[in-house]
Amino acid sequence: MSKATLPIGIFDSGVGGLTVAAAICRLLPHEHIVYLGDTARLPYGNKSVATVQRYAIKNAHFLLKQKVKALVIACNTASAMALEVLQGITDVPVLGVITPGAQAAVKASKSGAIGVIGTVGTIRSNAYQNAITALRPDARVVALPCPLFVPLAEEGFMHHKATELIARTYLTPLHHEDIDTLVLGCTHYPLLQHIIAEIMGPHIALVDSANTAALALHNALSTRELLTTARKPGARTFYATDISDRFQEIAQSFFGPGFGTLEHLDLTE
Amino acid sequence: MSKATLPIGIFDSGVGGLTVAAAICRLLPHEHIVYLGDTARLPYGNKSVATVQRYAIKNAHFLLKQKVKALVIACNTASAMALEVLQGITDVPVLGVITPGAQAAVKASKSGAIGVIGTVGTIRSNAYQNAITALRPDARVVALPCPLFVPLAEEGFMHHKATELIARTYLTPLHHEDIDTLVLGCTHYPLLQHIIAEIMGPHIALVDSANTAALALHNALSTRELLTTARKPGARTFYATDISDRFQEIAQSFFGPGFGTLEHLDLTE
Repeated sequence: MSKATLPIGIFDSGVGGLTVAAAICRLLPHEHIVYLGDTARLPYGNKSVATVQRYAIKNAHFLLKQKVKALVIACNTASAMALEVLQGITDVPVLGVITPGAQAAVKASKSGAIGVIGTVGTIRSNAYQNAITALRPDARVVALPCPLFVPLAEEGFMHHKATELIARTYLTPLHHEDIDTLVLGCTHYPLLQHIIAEIMGPHIALVDSANTAALALHNALSTRELLTTARKPGARTFYATDISDRFQEIAQSFFGPGFGTLEHLDLTE
Repeated sequence: MSKATLPIGIFDSGVGGLTVAAAICRLLPHEHIVYLGDTARLPYGNKSVATVQRYAIKNAHFLLKQKVKALVIACNTASAMALEVLQGITDVPVLGVITPGAQAAVKASKSGAIGVIGTVGTIRSNAYQNAITALRPDARVVALPCPLFVPLAEEGFMHHKATELIARTYLTPLHHEDIDTLVLGCTHYPLLQHIIAEIMGPHIALVDSANTAALALHNALSTRELLTTARKPGARTFYATDISDRFQEIAQSFFGPGFGTLEHLDLTE
């Protein structure tokens, strides 16, 4: 069996990474994917580096056992904290979402004044700040944690006045920073994009890493001659460490009713 | 060494159980306590029964290894889902917070129409509904999940307008239920008591399980002649599976600056 026919492994703390998985499936519809949502231990965004690294390693080991040809960390927090650790435990290409997000931001920004919002863990890691200034050394990066955005999105409060008030509390300081681009540095935040866009106004470009991460994966596979030559739709297998109705609902909203198979996975034993 | 000199073991998913630990320390100041906050895997409230039971067993095993003379599940979700499981693995008394909360509610209610708010897991378990009707068969229990209250309290949004709006969204249906008592069925909710009280109005009694749980523990120890005879303040040892600044801050707010020792504990290996 050619290595090119093997699946792509993707993991996140929960459902946020489905935005990245959906972008990958749009760009590479013939690839098989295996998605792991570590819902039994989410959220990652307010946990320590050591804890997130340990969870990321467990997730990666499971996906590597499924013989994946590439590994995508579809979670900004885990990308910020565990990318190099995971690259050290395998020979398959391991991609995070921070570099793709930084590339999208640098491309979108004219002035080089770029805002980044994310979880406490992502912001504290300085990963976006470093990735952006590596691409554009004169960039000025303003980074802000928005810890309640994940639970608000998870609970379906995307159109509640309270979410707008919380977003105003978080984002108002950015009005004084004269940025022209804002990175949604968490895979959940696109679900609140309408509120964030209204508060930031029409002159600030909002970017996320889903599409750029899919392109980066395409390039990594292409360079290594690992793109499948299959011409029928790839299989999609989803694992969650804690199965919930919401995981199924959100997977269906991204991938349709026949979204693939969903299995419970016990990673803690 | 007499068994009475052994410590009391207390666990929660995180900091919420500190409200119960503080009530125990007020009532039984000479007892040693060992507190475990499973912060690496919080929250429990939106996870499945099997997952919460597995976490509860791991927490209990750790505390039993510390040779505790009693075990207090200072978390409504874990009490609802894992009390009997834990009673099955040890001979020391294991106490949850649901029965004490139900006792407090039945004592406070004249009409027998009682509201209960808690996490999705606690409400879905029907544990409060069953415990209240076991004490008062003609009681009418109205139960409502309020899943965002834990993250709002954890993030310090106790006095934000958004929290009031979210609380109004959650609690307004209770105005049509003609209840006279509302159980704060989650150890985090006392932190939002001022908002909940304003929305519910002065004629609805708010009860939580912290003080009643401390009394139940006193009775369980007294019956078994396990109360310490020591006359100096007990030692307080805190473990967290993920150490954060917030855990230390909240522990200090409950127990003062010299609140005891705090150690990191790795339960996942």
